Amino acid sequence: MSQPNMVIGMHLGNGYGSQPGAWRMPWVDPRNYASFDAKVRHAQAAERGKLHFVFLPDGPGHVGDIENEAPHFNLDVMLTLAAVARGTGRIGLVATGSTTFNEPYNLARQFKALDIMSHGRAGWNAVTSSGEDVAANYGRRLPSSPERYGRAHEAIQLVQALWGSWGQDAWVHDQASGQFAKGKRIAPVNLGGKFVASRGPLYIPPSEQGQPVIFHAGGSPNALELAGRFASVVIGVAFTIDDARAQRAAFRDAAARAGRHPDEIKFVAGLMTTIAGDRRSALDRRIALTERTFPDRLAYLQQMLGVRLDPARLDQPLSPDQLAAARPSPRDPRSAHALNIAREGWSLRDILAHGVIDYHPVIVGPAVEAADHMQEWFESGAVDGFWVSPDIYDDGIDAFVDGVIPILQERGLFHEDYAGSTLRDHLGVPAQYGVDHRLR
Amino acid sequence: MSQPNMVIGMHLGNGYGSQPGAWRMPWVDPRNYASFDAKVRHAQAAERGKLHFVFLPDGPGHVGDIENEAPHFNLDVMLTLAAVARGTGRIGLVATGSTTFNEPYNLARQFKALDIMSHGRAGWNAVTSSGEDVAANYGRRLPSSPERYGRAHEAIQLVQALWGSWGQDAWVHDQASGQFAKGKRIAPVNLGGKFVASRGPLYIPPSEQGQPVIFHAGGSPNALELAGRFASVVIGVAFTIDDARAQRAAFRDAAARAGRHPDEIKFVAGLMTTIAGDRRSALDRRIALTERTFPDRLAYLQQMLGVRLDPARLDQPLSPDQLAAARPSPRDPRSAHALNIAREGWSLRDILAHGVIDYHPVIVGPAVEAADHMQEWFESGAVDGFWVSPDIYDDGIDAFVDGVIPILQERGLFHEDYAGSTLRDHLGVPAQYGVDHRLR
Repeated sequence: MSQPNMVIGMHLGNGYGSQPGAWRMPWVDPRNYASFDAKVRHAQAAERGKLHFVFLPDGPGHVGDIENEAPHFNLDVMLTLAAVARGTGRIGLVATGSTTFNEPYNLARQFKALDIMSHGRAGWNAVTSSGEDVAANYGRRLPSSPERYGRAHEAIQLVQALWGSWGQDAWVHDQASGQFAKGKRIAPVNLGGKFVASRGPLYIPPSEQGQPVIFHAGGSPNALELAGRFASVVIGVAFTIDDARAQRAAFRDAAARAGRHPDEIKFVAGLMTTIAGDRRSALDRRIALTERTFPDRLAYLQQMLGVRLDPARLDQPLSPDQLAAARPSPRDPRSAHALNIAREGWSLRDILAHGVIDYHPVIVGPAVEAADHMQEWFESGAVDGFWVSPDIYDDGIDAFVDGVIPILQERGLFHEDYAGSTLRDHLGVPAQYGVDHRLR
Repeated sequence: MSQPNMVIGMHLGNGYGSQPGAWRMPWVDPRNYASFDAKVRHAQAAERGKLHFVFLPDGPGHVGDIENEAPHFNLDVMLTLAAVARGTGRIGLVATGSTTFNEPYNLARQFKALDIMSHGRAGWNAVTSSGEDVAANYGRRLPSSPERYGRAHEAIQLVQALWGSWGQDAWVHDQASGQFAKGKRIAPVNLGGKFVASRGPLYIPPSEQGQPVIFHAGGSPNALELAGRFASVVIGVAFTIDDARAQRAAFRDAAARAGRHPDEIKFVAGLMTTIAGDRRSALDRRIALTERTFPDRLAYLQQMLGVRLDPARLDQPLSPDQLAAARPSPRDPRSAHALNIAREGWSLRDILAHGVIDYHPVIVGPAVEAADHMQEWFESGAVDGFWVSPDIYDDGIDAFVDGVIPILQERGLFHEDYAGSTLRDHLGVPAQYGVDHRLR
């Protein structure tokens, strides 16, 4: 029997959790947004569960409905990961870094320094960023998609080249001979393209894993091509097994087109969790967390099901007539699941509490339901794993780690311990140093 | 009697020390360049001495004589300070951030996040950077000095405005009412100039000190003007009391011209130390550290003194004829001091070991000599304090903290403890939030 190889990462956002109401729960410290102690504690909880990595997405700079909700992201993903690197020993550390709004040389030095600091646990989620509000923070309009992806292709190659600008054996620091490094094994990169350029070399020696692992998030044709060339892990979004399977196949094809083995790219899908001892307790927890959104979401649920729903009757299930008339909207991939939940006879409030309208599939129930979902998707070839967004970090990570992980381990789906000490070890990502592809 | 108010910062560079030979000393771990543990330990030693701040200069990207010497800077100054923030509780955390090679929005978010993380201990040494080799890392030529300073003036104002884009009372995180922040007290900055622009707002609330303290390093007329407007502390270089006094007066005048009180800008001069029980031991330590450089430096010493010196006779002092013929070079402000040392009868080797050719005045001797130097400069009105570069961090910081600091405290020159908890508290820098000046 081969080693269990489901990949699991933990999403760490603003310090509260993936649900907008998380910061208001009485057992949550409302200052977690600014607390690096909290963020380190959350990562330690994920590491206790032997999760492959924590993943910190970044805007950069979207503020949102600040009157009622916390911003979604960390104060600074790199400084947060620096704190996490100091407070953990094994778990991978992955952050989003925009290729559009950063200089490649600055990305190269900061991710490589994190890689050194964490003894080979860093990953870079290289994305192009979107949003005119984000671009405006940099005093500009958002470049077109071809421009952004054109720059991203160049930037990633430049960063990888800078990472590899010291030969792997270059740093000798031999006190006796006085040779600090082999100067001949440290070379400028002298790369320039249409969008970015750098001379180098970088001044940072190899880490325990050589250099960081590349991640990518995005589903457009441009994203497919970029991920196919460079990414070892794709941070994905899919609401059904069929959709996930198709996306995974597309990324594997893209890797093959780029001359790589399809197994070199792993597709992990988002999963949101509200874990409690039983379904009712989990639903009540999620009602407390999300009730404020129910008026808006009920209006949207109407569109998903194609029937009128009465906001004054949240306690009632859909009537037999409503159920008979309901048709899942072809415009929202979550609609069929929402109708299935409605058919089980739950009240409108409980249908919404099942998380039928959220950014990812949602498990609201006991740990075994999450494990079942993950097993089914994994064994269907729909995913290589998951990135998990708990509702509330302060206790939702523990609920996942203490409830779901042991079931997955018992079923032989998830490793009992880390395979090694670096993120490449954890993920089985091949060794790489310098640019992995011909420049093009 | 007023509070003693000499300001002292500790220079933390590459993990070894300010002398190129530091990494080779048998009691130094030659892997310190890549060791964040070492850097945290060094900062903790400085904090034990109640020093106001650690200062981490940055290139960014100069590699140097890598065959024989370590690069001068940290792998990444922000990630290093993040580690130091997690490992210390009081000492200020100051790093160089280039206004030329960073986006203002990225500078704003990262320094403000450090300020939050350290509970109000961050300082930004805002400099324009120089060197074609550095610019080449960013794929460009170095902009002209007027362009670089033009951008710096705008960038600092933009960063300060972004720092203050949340009202000081804006972050309420009131779980009962559900108000996360006062939306009306969070406003975009909408600033744009000739070189940089940003809409904002930043998404980060105030820190315990409101926002970071601005430092500047540089001595040109452009630097004077920039520091006069924005800097609370100037990281200076001066070889004589007269020169330091003139520089300090010029910075105070520049502050006054910018409409500030002259006391709002503090001039701290560099000081390098090799502290040992007696002068002979200190000289021997420095010989071990720097002997490799002596052939080059002897050739340079000839020019400083205007006499021929024989590299085969390093054990000999200057002859009476040589001493009579020697004239301090007017082109090097260190020459008069070098001649004074020569007149004391030291051998050529020991003259060089006194550090007569280095980046700052050098103390090679017992702790009391450093204290005397600092007292004399301070009481002459030449400086508001010092930034100290020990020869070797692993034991040179301890030698300074355990030897020099108690003498300064006994003499009433240096505080017995931190005045408060933030860098502004330590330095007596006035409260500030948002932009401190009219935009111009």
